[in-house]
Amino acid sequence: MECGLSPIIGFRFSLHPMTNDFIKVIKGALKETDTTNVWMHTDDVSTVIRGKQVHVFNVAKAITLHAAKTGEHIALSGTFSAGCPGDSAGDVYLDKGDIIANTDITKQYVSSQFALYPMNNPSYMNIIYREVDRAKAQGVFNDSMHYASGIHGDIHEVFAFYEEAFTNARSDEHKHLVMTVSMSINSPSHGGR
Amino acid sequence: MECGLSPIIGFRFSLHPMTNDFIKVIKGALKETDTTNVWMHTDDVSTVIRGKQVHVFNVAKAITLHAAKTGEHIALSGTFSAGCPGDSAGDVYLDKGDIIANTDITKQYVSSQFALYPMNNPSYMNIIYREVDRAKAQGVFNDSMHYASGIHGDIHEVFAFYEEAFTNARSDEHKHLVMTVSMSINSPSHGGR
Repeated sequence: MECGLSPIIGFRFSLHPMTNDFIKVIKGALKETDTTNVWMHTDDVSTVIRGKQVHVFNVAKAITLHAAKTGEHIALSGTFSAGCPGDSAGDVYLDKGDIIANTDITKQYVSSQFALYPMNNPSYMNIIYREVDRAKAQGVFNDSMHYASGIHGDIHEVFAFYEEAFTNARSDEHKHLVMTVSMSINSPSHGGR
Repeated sequence: MECGLSPIIGFRFSLHPMTNDFIKVIKGALKETDTTNVWMHTDDVSTVIRGKQVHVFNVAKAITLHAAKTGEHIALSGTFSAGCPGDSAGDVYLDKGDIIANTDITKQYVSSQFALYPMNNPSYMNIIYREVDRAKAQGVFNDSMHYASGIHGDIHEVFAFYEEAFTNARSDEHKHLVMTVSMSINSPSHGGR
């Protein structure tokens, strides 16, 4: 089985509203997001969206932002993937144009952590360090920590950084890339931001 | 920077109780778990535990089980890591014995998904397939899906599978291993299990 031969990007994630009304928050966020540019499937643990990179990141951000706007403490955890396994399947919308469907620019503070896993690439640590340095240069770096790096700021800046990192960390030679992201929004731990 | 030269195992995770009382559930689960065998640190997004593999998995399971016993819908998402970056730091308890501190055997249904990322290993896909086959043989396999595999059953069987998979998927030659796990417990989506 070969990996990374397809331009499909996927994001498997779970949205966790820390409220008794969690179903309402999740369903509301999905309803308010235009998901027509991505293939989407939800099971009992997570949701996966697949398609062109621009749309996968746009939809991921929109779902998160809509959930955040409820004011509830929410968390998003998920994994962006480019490459296998399974990316030769037809459940993907690669014939969509490049115009994003969700354009809400409401500001929202996000504290998050991410990790990059360039697969089968002997230089993977250098790639990780390069992207962490870029986060510092862009002003979204929060903290160093074991197994991840802290990224924070406005949701639009944070997602823009993640999308760029996901582009930068893969190459024609090393196409299979995984990036985990964990976000916390409206948390009592954020000290009133 | 070299990776995978230390026997330290780490687990960076977030526990998400889908209830207004989320703080109480999280603090209660941490209080009822004996964490003396692991180094632990919590920030505004996640918690990391580090130490010998046996204790890291034991503490991860105990925190999850205690939170589950509240009856609330909870989710756990996290990443187990062996190897770098940062694993030469002193914040780890490798001098502990091998006797586990948490021995609650209460049964609890868990539906979960996992992915293995053996780093810098050209045979990584074979390793992933082998562990998924082992899940099928052990009766904890639930479903195939993009970017992950579904694992379900009693919490003790599920965690036992994950610990074995984490052992099996790394070797002296390829020490740097990452495994993501996402769990859902007491979910209305589990159909009354």
